[in-house]
Amino acid sequence: MTLPERVKIVEVGPRDGLQNEKTILPHYVKIDLINRLSESGLSYIEASSFVSPKAIPQLGDAKIVLDEITRKSGVTYAALVPNIKGLENALDMSPTPNPPPLQGGRIKVGGLEEVAIFTAASETFCQKNINASIDESFIRFAPVMELAKAHNIRVRGYVSCVAGCPYEGKINPERVAEISARLMDIGCYEVSLGDTIGVGTPHQIELIIHHVAKFIDMPHIALHMHNTYGQALANIYAGLQMGIATIDSSVGGLGGCPYAKGASGNVATEDLVYMLNGLGIETGVNLESIIKTAWFIAECLGRQPDSKVAHALNPLTVIPAKAGTLT
Amino acid sequence: MTLPERVKIVEVGPRDGLQNEKTILPHYVKIDLINRLSESGLSYIEASSFVSPKAIPQLGDAKIVLDEITRKSGVTYAALVPNIKGLENALDMSPTPNPPPLQGGRIKVGGLEEVAIFTAASETFCQKNINASIDESFIRFAPVMELAKAHNIRVRGYVSCVAGCPYEGKINPERVAEISARLMDIGCYEVSLGDTIGVGTPHQIELIIHHVAKFIDMPHIALHMHNTYGQALANIYAGLQMGIATIDSSVGGLGGCPYAKGASGNVATEDLVYMLNGLGIETGVNLESIIKTAWFIAECLGRQPDSKVAHALNPLTVIPAKAGTLT
Repeated sequence: MTLPERVKIVEVGPRDGLQNEKTILPHYVKIDLINRLSESGLSYIEASSFVSPKAIPQLGDAKIVLDEITRKSGVTYAALVPNIKGLENALDMSPTPNPPPLQGGRIKVGGLEEVAIFTAASETFCQKNINASIDESFIRFAPVMELAKAHNIRVRGYVSCVAGCPYEGKINPERVAEISARLMDIGCYEVSLGDTIGVGTPHQIELIIHHVAKFIDMPHIALHMHNTYGQALANIYAGLQMGIATIDSSVGGLGGCPYAKGASGNVATEDLVYMLNGLGIETGVNLESIIKTAWFIAECLGRQPDSKVAHALNPLTVIPAKAGTLT
Repeated sequence: MTLPERVKIVEVGPRDGLQNEKTILPHYVKIDLINRLSESGLSYIEASSFVSPKAIPQLGDAKIVLDEITRKSGVTYAALVPNIKGLENALDMSPTPNPPPLQGGRIKVGGLEEVAIFTAASETFCQKNINASIDESFIRFAPVMELAKAHNIRVRGYVSCVAGCPYEGKINPERVAEISARLMDIGCYEVSLGDTIGVGTPHQIELIIHHVAKFIDMPHIALHMHNTYGQALANIYAGLQMGIATIDSSVGGLGGCPYAKGASGNVATEDLVYMLNGLGIETGVNLESIIKTAWFIAECLGRQPDSKVAHALNPLTVIPAKAGTLT
């Protein structure tokens, strides 16, 4: 069994994480967060989402955030766009007249390099999530792909609910493969397989990858595992064993699950990096720096990081050992 | 890759879990907990520890707990014994004159069937944990093994710190194998490999098992993974792939880590059962019942279960979905 030598981590905390947090953060905190993430060595950050602020008020400031982050060379800053209107808004990014001073670097104004579109492997979920059937979602994608191509913007595709759906239950992996293939057919360069409600277990994830890999080469398949049932790292380990080398994660385990109160969001970046470090897989990410960022953003949200490593390696709380009967 | 068809779960919550909780529970709560665990289908419960109440006040009532649980046929109830004094105390179990009435069944008085002894793969940890060198720990075991044999009591052996030690750092897997083999040589029927501080990652655990398996047949090797760094299920999945079929876990993720405040204890039984169910591996354990027990004991401790599944499948807190941009 050969694992990949290097894994690309797609940091989705500022988007998939924050959109599921109750607290609405000011834009400068998000900018600070994204800058800290890029400084930690992450090479891909999904920074926000150009969606209706009515639907997702947490990300209503996508434009200013994308405008004002300090763009680090070699880092891809992406945004989610649900439809052509989202992409048009994203393209309209422009310098802010009087940007506030930011911690950690000067202000640059950048352009959009990459966007992500999303559909689902479950009809019912797709309908409830974006008010469209799966086929209708692809109709919406056509002008997005066209405009993106015209602006030389790469497009990443998400498939939600690959392992299970809160309405339909278990999802047929062949259906996941079919929809993934369609996303590649319309011009996506990569498909991220989302276990949106975190119900998958390792063999199931292997089976899904097996079917998707019939249509898409392994380097173009990513895993987007939520840790709702604690299975994310085991599922990712199963994926790595099959050659998956792109993994989505969220600093501090930002986010949650709207289907289960108190449940977790995406797998925490620091827990993922810890495992990959242990497996000898390169990520380019500084674990200590990610842990600090996890505590930073958790504090801004008034809660604790939802990750194990952030607690285990929090240098402020290490206490002396006590004799006993530890096993 | 063939996974085992069936896994024996060794429930250590009432012992390894409760000994690391700040709250000292009354004996009738522990008895209720153990009875609920046996009712959920668990076939092996480490019920308490015959240690000095000064060292571990949380388990100072081992005798009354072991005396008064409702013993279910087919379930093994074990206790940890650090030395001959512990075993002698354990053997002295006798009916309590006026046992309090318990929820869920009548009171039986049972005998001791099995005990566990423990040493470590790290000299420094062994010294700090039990105030003895590893060699001295084996000197202590000799009379324990003799007395146990005389009473037809089976003995399980723990090796702590197999993946890492808070004082010595990484542990040589060959050293783990050597100590495991010694435990079998003196008469243990099984050795449980404890990643006491939860630092291990999958390949490291595989390497440890590989070395231990040179001396001990796979059916006699158990994994005892703490989830301090969130790696437990990935490590267990790696172990299952090698043929490990006995896994220790703790309902509700009871316990903690005295080396990192806020860190987790043993892997939660419900998270483990969820994964094993998904892998099609039989355990005989009713997941719903374990989740209820996790909430029961968490409430008694005044906290939330430290597990993902207990939150994800808590029927009281499921809330309706909201449209958005979930991936």
